[in-house]
Amino acid sequence: MHSKFTITAPDQGLAAALQQKIDQKTKPLGALGQLEAVAKQIGLIQQRLDPEFGQPHMLVFAGDHGAAKAGVSAYPQDVTWQMVENFLAGGAAINVFARQNDLHLAIIDAGVAHDFGKRPGLINAKVASGTANYLEEPAMTAAQCAVAVERGAEFIRNLAANGCNLVGFGEMGIGNTAAASLITHCLTGVSLAACVGRGTGLDDAGLQRKQGLLEQALRRYRAAGGGDQPAAVLAEFGGFEIAMMVGAMLAAAEAKMVMLIDGFIVGSAALVAARLVPAVADYCIFCHRSAEAGHAAQLKALAAEPLLDLGLRLGEGTGAALAYPLVLAAINFLGEMASFESAGVSDKE
Amino acid sequence: MHSKFTITAPDQGLAAALQQKIDQKTKPLGALGQLEAVAKQIGLIQQRLDPEFGQPHMLVFAGDHGAAKAGVSAYPQDVTWQMVENFLAGGAAINVFARQNDLHLAIIDAGVAHDFGKRPGLINAKVASGTANYLEEPAMTAAQCAVAVERGAEFIRNLAANGCNLVGFGEMGIGNTAAASLITHCLTGVSLAACVGRGTGLDDAGLQRKQGLLEQALRRYRAAGGGDQPAAVLAEFGGFEIAMMVGAMLAAAEAKMVMLIDGFIVGSAALVAARLVPAVADYCIFCHRSAEAGHAAQLKALAAEPLLDLGLRLGEGTGAALAYPLVLAAINFLGEMASFESAGVSDKE
Repeated sequence: MHSKFTITAPDQGLAAALQQKIDQKTKPLGALGQLEAVAKQIGLIQQRLDPEFGQPHMLVFAGDHGAAKAGVSAYPQDVTWQMVENFLAGGAAINVFARQNDLHLAIIDAGVAHDFGKRPGLINAKVASGTANYLEEPAMTAAQCAVAVERGAEFIRNLAANGCNLVGFGEMGIGNTAAASLITHCLTGVSLAACVGRGTGLDDAGLQRKQGLLEQALRRYRAAGGGDQPAAVLAEFGGFEIAMMVGAMLAAAEAKMVMLIDGFIVGSAALVAARLVPAVADYCIFCHRSAEAGHAAQLKALAAEPLLDLGLRLGEGTGAALAYPLVLAAINFLGEMASFESAGVSDKE
Repeated sequence: MHSKFTITAPDQGLAAALQQKIDQKTKPLGALGQLEAVAKQIGLIQQRLDPEFGQPHMLVFAGDHGAAKAGVSAYPQDVTWQMVENFLAGGAAINVFARQNDLHLAIIDAGVAHDFGKRPGLINAKVASGTANYLEEPAMTAAQCAVAVERGAEFIRNLAANGCNLVGFGEMGIGNTAAASLITHCLTGVSLAACVGRGTGLDDAGLQRKQGLLEQALRRYRAAGGGDQPAAVLAEFGGFEIAMMVGAMLAAAEAKMVMLIDGFIVGSAALVAARLVPAVADYCIFCHRSAEAGHAAQLKALAAEPLLDLGLRLGEGTGAALAYPLVLAAINFLGEMASFESAGVSDKE
């Protein structure tokens, strides 16, 4: 699927000049810690010493999972569409945080098992009414997966054409931590047990049941000859929202946009995209360390150090929206702080 | 000195109602992690289910240290007043972050060794032109310390009278990590070596030299009969900016304001204030984990878990200003998110 995308790593030619600009700011060398690395990364992505964000967007992709009915989540499947309604009404956490931080919020129906009709504020990109149950068959066909990827990419191309150069990723889909666990296991090789967590709040018995079901899904996939190719794993276990994010991420990297990666489920899409085209990771800012078990495996595989570690496990892109002011602070210090010379401040003796 | 302050811990009567409100929001239980604890803390401080911030301020206290000339810092002492000029001109990191996050910024001369004259934007609370050198004598007299505390308190009382209910604390003072190290050692009992760090960027030799000097200062103090009473330790080693922050923190706790505690130096003031009146800590939100060695000892002594861990070691209140959007997010989710009932979302099965 990635043959359609022309993705190159950011040119490193500006790296020395960016580092010099950072080091001449009125602060001890390195004193802004991770923000300095973020500033440099964004400068390289935009190929500018004074990067700027235009039309920053938070995208929430929603989809349903056939396996949800088998009991991989603490919540009933209807919560997916109910939460989409909550997004449209402005009452969810992501609404609050996007509003606070001046992020345009877009809600995308990638494949919710519900007919919303035509609704203001809801982007209809529905591939189907939920995926198939991967306990019995692949979650989606290769053709469905390709449609999801293409729709995600198309959405990003439109945003880019309208001046957007930063996108945060979020998701909603009851059962999607289970899908992310299977994807993470297959693409990192970390044991399935270490990739499975409590999701939205399973108790011990629920966690054990979830793990048993996911082992069963994995056995079925392996018995059918399934391997670890990212596109195959994505179609086998992924939700439509995850596949659509993969397409969106590939297109965002192609368009040299800054991407804010939320937690475990968005991370599984980033992992797939980076396995398809490693340079995708150069465009990603990892925003928070999820409390979900398998996130550590993803972060290690992507050599990522997230900005926040607040024990969040909500999804919706909340970690990305909460980290956005830090990302903005990174380009603001680069653009607005005085240098030792301009401020007449003595440098280190 | 604390007999002048009437400080009580927040009444816990509202705790159950706040927890219930948090738990009924459309999210899994506990899914907003540390933000939930912050929301509850602020609700208790303000005794409201819908807390609000009024006139949020970031205060930067500046002062010089007699010991700076002995070589406890990588930077010359003149950098203190030069950085104050940088603050007044709007070019420092704290200016950038306070602007970005809509925090009023106040710069307070607690005791800089420089004559600024009358300057717009600079609050003249100067106790003296820098402290004495604690390698030879106490940094300040008990009377000077009391003046610093009182001026800090008075400043806060004026802010509170004008509707301010949130203050972030920051500082500038070449040599003040050394003072903070001595204070932290005396008040926590953690070894001096474990409380001494590189400050603004000492190399190995500089760190060794700094540690030797601080051991010398400590020996002199102990030989003169100096003990571990917070007020005595503060006067012996503290800068005027640290003493003024102690007074400001006591007054802020008295006025039931939310306090944003920056890193190691502000933390040393919080430690002194909390040793004088333990309930002060209930009003503090610890904003970031400093890269400075002794910060861990402070955080442990105060049982504090900071919001950010970005490897910052700049001071000026930058960690507090950067964490402010997270603190705002905590009260915003509490005030603006829908409940399961109001949004028509099914709760956990």
